[in-house]
Amino acid sequence: MRLLEERIKKDGVIKGNDILKVDSFLNHQIDPFLADEMGKEFFRLFKDENVDKILTIEASGIAVAILTAKYFGKPLVFAKKSRTSNLSNEVWTAKAFSFTHNVENTVMVSKQYLGKGERVLLIDDFLANGCALRALRDIVLQAGGIPVGAGIVIEKAFQPGGDELRKEGLRIESLARISAMSEENGVEFC
Amino acid sequence: MRLLEERIKKDGVIKGNDILKVDSFLNHQIDPFLADEMGKEFFRLFKDENVDKILTIEASGIAVAILTAKYFGKPLVFAKKSRTSNLSNEVWTAKAFSFTHNVENTVMVSKQYLGKGERVLLIDDFLANGCALRALRDIVLQAGGIPVGAGIVIEKAFQPGGDELRKEGLRIESLARISAMSEENGVEFC
Repeated sequence: MRLLEERIKKDGVIKGNDILKVDSFLNHQIDPFLADEMGKEFFRLFKDENVDKILTIEASGIAVAILTAKYFGKPLVFAKKSRTSNLSNEVWTAKAFSFTHNVENTVMVSKQYLGKGERVLLIDDFLANGCALRALRDIVLQAGGIPVGAGIVIEKAFQPGGDELRKEGLRIESLARISAMSEENGVEFC
Repeated sequence: MRLLEERIKKDGVIKGNDILKVDSFLNHQIDPFLADEMGKEFFRLFKDENVDKILTIEASGIAVAILTAKYFGKPLVFAKKSRTSNLSNEVWTAKAFSFTHNVENTVMVSKQYLGKGERVLLIDDFLANGCALRALRDIVLQAGGIPVGAGIVIEKAFQPGGDELRKEGLRIESLARISAMSEENGVEFC
């Protein structure tokens, strides 16, 4: 998606060889026009998949995911990372190691919001090692649902998550795929 | 907002005398149509305030806040609850006790995304004791910005937060104000 690639080139900040900070427009401050365009693009890519539900994970996936859900006219469910007093005891869970926070999260979705046979589109802002996306996919499978695909904003294609999950049969559409990046040379897209 | 009040009556679940579960349409599963209508309503209420930026707090405020930001055509910033490796060291912070999670959070916003003189609209899903909203307001004040008001989805008007913050001069517009609730009698609105 050219609009996103241009924005990454313009406003993304690279630290070392694997940290890309996009918190000026994606995961701390969010540009609602860009987020809406991304929701529209995910709808275009997956509109023939008879999607029943959108699933993302808190927190930074929620903005793009609700706009995607709006184009589909289907509910968004966001997986939670910690047990709260408001969450039912009846939850689907999966483990996901977060490299950003350097902690293993238990990712949870209340059983009443994912049902058998439901066709679920996964949405997340980043795909690198694939831990979060794998957890979302596994939760859908536990629920007896069908993960019809994953819409990712930025894929670090030089890390293994995307290719591993594609080999396991998951359709992944990434709006920007980064093949290499460095402080010296900036970002290169696939 | 009648649409929201009707949805609370239909799908809200009351536990004891002060827990209202709305996770089927607001804070775990989210109805994108309802969320969009709420964004539109916040725009109608605050459109004359020359809003520069929308500020919310992760995670469940983000969906309504990005749709509000879309109507204003202005960026959304979401405050974070924990320090991550992706967050700059230069942050505005405030403490907020979360009764939902029974923990004191440090709420943080990167200094580069809130500036002096900016007119900031606060958005959150719930207002009860007012801790989260107070933290957001204080962060805007620290940054030298102007908190022009707060758009709240559900206010528990029988708890003190809303009245206290109004007395301190904050304009608060709540789409549903609950005057009383119980398992026996359901929800009553102001």
